[in-house]
Amino acid sequence: MPRPERFDVLFEPVRIGPVTAKNRFYQVPHCNGMGRAFPSSMAAMRGVKAEGGWGVVCTEQCDIHYSGNHQRELRLWDAKDIPYLARATDLIHEHGALAGVELAHNGAHVSNLESRAVPIAASVEATRGLFPGTARAMDKNDIRAFRRWHRAAAVNAQRAGFDIVYVYAGHDMTLPINFLSRRRNQRTDEYGGSLENRARLLRELIEDAKEAVGDRCAVAVRFSVDEMMGERGITADGEGYDVVEMLAELPDLWDVNVSNFDNDGATARFSDEGYQQQYVKFVKSVTTKPVVGVGRFTSPDTMVSMIRGGTLDLIGAARPSIADPFLPRKVEEGRFDDIRECIGCNICVAFDRAGAPFRCTQNPTTGEEWRRGWHPERIERRTTDDTVLIAGGGPAGLEAARALGQRGYSVILAERGRELGGRVTRESRLPGLATYARVRDWRLQQLRSMRTVQLLPGNEVTPELVHEAGCSLVAVATGAVWRRDGVGRHHTAAVPGLDRLPVFTPDDIMDGRLPSGRVVLFDDDHYYMANVLAEHLVRHGCEVTFVTPESMVAAFTQQTAEQRRIARRMLELCASVRPLTSLARTEAGAAHLACVYTGRETEVPADAVVLATGMVPRDTLYQELRNEDPQALAASGVRRVVRVGDCLGPGIIAAAVHSGHEFARTLDTGLTDWTPFRRENVALDWDQAMPPASNAVVRSEA
Amino acid sequence: MPRPERFDVLFEPVRIGPVTAKNRFYQVPHCNGMGRAFPSSMAAMRGVKAEGGWGVVCTEQCDIHYSGNHQRELRLWDAKDIPYLARATDLIHEHGALAGVELAHNGAHVSNLESRAVPIAASVEATRGLFPGTARAMDKNDIRAFRRWHRAAAVNAQRAGFDIVYVYAGHDMTLPINFLSRRRNQRTDEYGGSLENRARLLRELIEDAKEAVGDRCAVAVRFSVDEMMGERGITADGEGYDVVEMLAELPDLWDVNVSNFDNDGATARFSDEGYQQQYVKFVKSVTTKPVVGVGRFTSPDTMVSMIRGGTLDLIGAARPSIADPFLPRKVEEGRFDDIRECIGCNICVAFDRAGAPFRCTQNPTTGEEWRRGWHPERIERRTTDDTVLIAGGGPAGLEAARALGQRGYSVILAERGRELGGRVTRESRLPGLATYARVRDWRLQQLRSMRTVQLLPGNEVTPELVHEAGCSLVAVATGAVWRRDGVGRHHTAAVPGLDRLPVFTPDDIMDGRLPSGRVVLFDDDHYYMANVLAEHLVRHGCEVTFVTPESMVAAFTQQTAEQRRIARRMLELCASVRPLTSLARTEAGAAHLACVYTGRETEVPADAVVLATGMVPRDTLYQELRNEDPQALAASGVRRVVRVGDCLGPGIIAAAVHSGHEFARTLDTGLTDWTPFRRENVALDWDQAMPPASNAVVRSEA
Repeated sequence: MPRPERFDVLFEPVRIGPVTAKNRFYQVPHCNGMGRAFPSSMAAMRGVKAEGGWGVVCTEQCDIHYSGNHQRELRLWDAKDIPYLARATDLIHEHGALAGVELAHNGAHVSNLESRAVPIAASVEATRGLFPGTARAMDKNDIRAFRRWHRAAAVNAQRAGFDIVYVYAGHDMTLPINFLSRRRNQRTDEYGGSLENRARLLRELIEDAKEAVGDRCAVAVRFSVDEMMGERGITADGEGYDVVEMLAELPDLWDVNVSNFDNDGATARFSDEGYQQQYVKFVKSVTTKPVVGVGRFTSPDTMVSMIRGGTLDLIGAARPSIADPFLPRKVEEGRFDDIRECIGCNICVAFDRAGAPFRCTQNPTTGEEWRRGWHPERIERRTTDDTVLIAGGGPAGLEAARALGQRGYSVILAERGRELGGRVTRESRLPGLATYARVRDWRLQQLRSMRTVQLLPGNEVTPELVHEAGCSLVAVATGAVWRRDGVGRHHTAAVPGLDRLPVFTPDDIMDGRLPSGRVVLFDDDHYYMANVLAEHLVRHGCEVTFVTPESMVAAFTQQTAEQRRIARRMLELCASVRPLTSLARTEAGAAHLACVYTGRETEVPADAVVLATGMVPRDTLYQELRNEDPQALAASGVRRVVRVGDCLGPGIIAAAVHSGHEFARTLDTGLTDWTPFRRENVALDWDQAMPPASNAVVRSEA
Repeated sequence: MPRPERFDVLFEPVRIGPVTAKNRFYQVPHCNGMGRAFPSSMAAMRGVKAEGGWGVVCTEQCDIHYSGNHQRELRLWDAKDIPYLARATDLIHEHGALAGVELAHNGAHVSNLESRAVPIAASVEATRGLFPGTARAMDKNDIRAFRRWHRAAAVNAQRAGFDIVYVYAGHDMTLPINFLSRRRNQRTDEYGGSLENRARLLRELIEDAKEAVGDRCAVAVRFSVDEMMGERGITADGEGYDVVEMLAELPDLWDVNVSNFDNDGATARFSDEGYQQQYVKFVKSVTTKPVVGVGRFTSPDTMVSMIRGGTLDLIGAARPSIADPFLPRKVEEGRFDDIRECIGCNICVAFDRAGAPFRCTQNPTTGEEWRRGWHPERIERRTTDDTVLIAGGGPAGLEAARALGQRGYSVILAERGRELGGRVTRESRLPGLATYARVRDWRLQQLRSMRTVQLLPGNEVTPELVHEAGCSLVAVATGAVWRRDGVGRHHTAAVPGLDRLPVFTPDDIMDGRLPSGRVVLFDDDHYYMANVLAEHLVRHGCEVTFVTPESMVAAFTQQTAEQRRIARRMLELCASVRPLTSLARTEAGAAHLACVYTGRETEVPADAVVLATGMVPRDTLYQELRNEDPQALAASGVRRVVRVGDCLGPGIIAAAVHSGHEFARTLDTGLTDWTPFRRENVALDWDQAMPPASNAVVRSEA
């Protein structure tokens, strides 16, 4: 079906300084946990996005000097790093996209753990994070040096093939935003005081870059127009506006967002599509240069309205481009139903923050493009005569069925319940998790047109049915259940006394069995389940005491950029929030809580306990089949039985989807003796030249 | 001076299975944050230890399979990793030491963020740490496979040149200890239940390794004999004893310690030299095999007593070997005063835990051996005619003077106070920090014999004195002061109302000016200062309310393995401990505290406030000199003025020592345009072969 004309506007070329983007789809810079440690993985991931139709594909942040050294993302300290970046630009260019690079110096935001250099900043300030250290105030030599490094990096970026070079002044992280910040810049020279002075460094960096590479590269500015902290920070109706107005025509492109990253990267639970519009919409009114912004855009109609309504010239995307690298191509071809929409869960962010290659709940192939040769759209045609029975229609089962169907395999998917979707269906009904249903919806949509896949909801798979079905492969995707004994990270043995008062698990509550009265909710999971349940229970009239052995509510959600919001919500909703506390034991009418350091107990009245601790696989079918005589199974034509998803290892939805996909690709999910992916090893460059013996500062302009 | 005969026992060779250690100095496996990411740096660091006389030098943990993948330490997944390890063994062998490798599979201790494999364990259990996930229970195929991987790794380790191959069952981390653990192993087959069953896997791994490589390699077991959690865990008088007795003669070496790492690696603040003796002393009574143990040994007499007293056969060391790689050589040569003793601060551990190359407070060259060519004992002779004036005798100034003196430079070190040592002298008088004085003492000891270095305590350097001295280089090492305005990580502006009640800083207290009565101690530093001051104040009769915006007391000390101990101590000593709380404002007689999430304020009565927040450099002298006419300075013969240590960037003592050392090596501490060290980049191995298309488990014994 050809696309309706109203979407044509998205495919207009956009001139950006000396270069032209072929359309309005713009993958803004985003980190991914691969960077310098997994450069081939990173390059392939970018290349696939270019293939998927993005007019511009940018890198993650790329640090330009050892005095602002990030542990993981890209770097461009000198020409030695060019080949890594050139690998990415080659792949991006192969598909007609422009390649952008986000040059960065993280100033006091980093502790230079690797380089050991004292961090630098506009003024003396403690370094961010917990590592003890203090950044020193840059003097004029330092500022001149920094400009020199930035210009050198721009030149090297051009040599690496980039079309767009960024000056990055965002997220309360880099040196130009550090200089801009009233609360951080205490300088009394021409780089401090008035806004014009505080913006001087940013202006100079733009001018330097334009002078150095502006004839062939566009110079973009990434700027956070609002820090969402009121008067203490930059605001879109205050200095955010003034900065854009002041430098309006200087860069070739404005890439605008909100700060800090917890705000820019807000999850679906706390923000809707297009949530940044109110902050960035002024930008186009004060500049004639193209403007790109983000807002977790997955709806082509919203995108069109952003253009038509005069908010943006280019549709920026980070997370939506990860969930569906082929989003632009699908819009172009009118295949709207094929768009695999980002669910806004930020598991991608979590992996990046942990310093590991990121993954995606919706797109199990991301990070695997190079190392396993997985493509988000293409998959090898069927290579065996296997037929497949999948027991369970949750995220793992559905993805396995879909990908096997795409390969041309004959598949029967039987699901015990009348609804498909398993945990994503159940969880999507909890407060704030509605988008999780997209994991199910996209797969069902794809399955609809697959003639070799049979979906059988309302059918529980038994060993008898396995024999009857006679499929050669059986994938048990029956999920997991929450434990009812309190065992998890903190307790390795059951909490005493749980037989003396009503105990509920997340499964109970998702099944509609709710406690009432005074509820002690014990969270030893530390992700979303316990706090989402707290919201649910409070809405249903419970008085909730939130107890966790971690030092904060939902500690893992620091990784998903949600923790502060969740903590605030729990403090609003719960009768009491008790971090650093465990559930020691229960009795009729009471729970005994213990300090995790001292063991000191306090008693709280309780009508019920809710336990969000550990999970165990629901693997009875698998165990039954494993206990059968292999000959008998073989006689029924069954050659292998495997577990997939939570039934193999209960965890995040992304892992379940990946497990289902892996099964469809390989027809197994077992461990192998060899590593099933290509590895990236450090070059043993033992004899490389030593740096110059003298460490002397280069004092002249080089 | 030749060494007294009583130390000869330390230099006896020790037979370990088929190999022989030349002496009793044994560098046990220790992580270092370099591992797979900085293999040349790691190899050079190990080589320097071999050069320093250690009879055995081991690697850090080295994971053997992608299903137990650590993010950072070494790996030996297959033959591709051999060259990395071989680089280390070559350098270790060059100096006549034996090379040991600690093979590891981290089971449920890791989340396999890179490989995405479901973690494996004896039984289903939540993975350690905060990443959501659950390990699956290994079935018999998995156990057979794991044994196969371990054996393959042992063979590859032998090919890489190792003399000692470890089976690692320690620290509540690896699979064999996971199987051994009563609280983690719920199996009902022959690998669960009785101790004999739970120890089966460990026994098999030892047997497998001996069979595979035992003819040429020693097989060592690293085992934690006590988990220091009483009945819930292994104890030295319970199953710890039984395991050693049961397997007594099976391995060629017992490497024994306590668990978890927070206990094994206890800091000097919480443990004394030899603190593990009481736990491990039984081992030699139940085995004839050589026994190695640790205890932060730096005293040769203690070492001798460990041997003579029948506790150990080999003196194990991790931290002491980092602080002084040449410790054995110095003992051998009777140069006892030259030993640079570990201060037991665990800053090494902190960097490793952060995934960065480690550093050492006492030894600024560690991690720099390869990348900057720094050697812990040797340094280039003077290459210029410079003379050097150092202002300030703290850790940076002393190290600069010492290393410059070693190079043969003429140095004047002038210190304002009558005592030398600066912050380490002051801090060493606070509770638990006595060992910090070793930073001063070793340097003063070394300086004593240096004829070109003049130490002038009781002399404050002024600009006039700089002109008078006429040294060509001036290093300003005047340290830093704690802020008096509450600015730090949390506050970027002064706390209101500080003029309304007595305010104390750590400097005041170290100077002997103490508050009295009810004290609100605001910790926005998060390392040791605030909690050490709390101890000090409580001892002096204050009633302390401990306030921190972080979610726990001394949050950074999670990295130094001290947090739980410190938190417990604060809960014991303080009237109240308030995490997630900031000091909002003060008034006469009261402090207003605010929840960091909601801003909700509570008032607490206070007679005084102590602020441990940020620091600022004490750099007046530097600024005065910078503001002078450069011609005037040149006329006095001054060609360069630099800052070193806390005066450049207030931070950890290790950074100050490193800064002083860097100045002595390079005669500057400024930033350069080029990276001042050799870098390790990932090989762009784009076209490497894909793994086999099928992911099928290898089900037969290979």
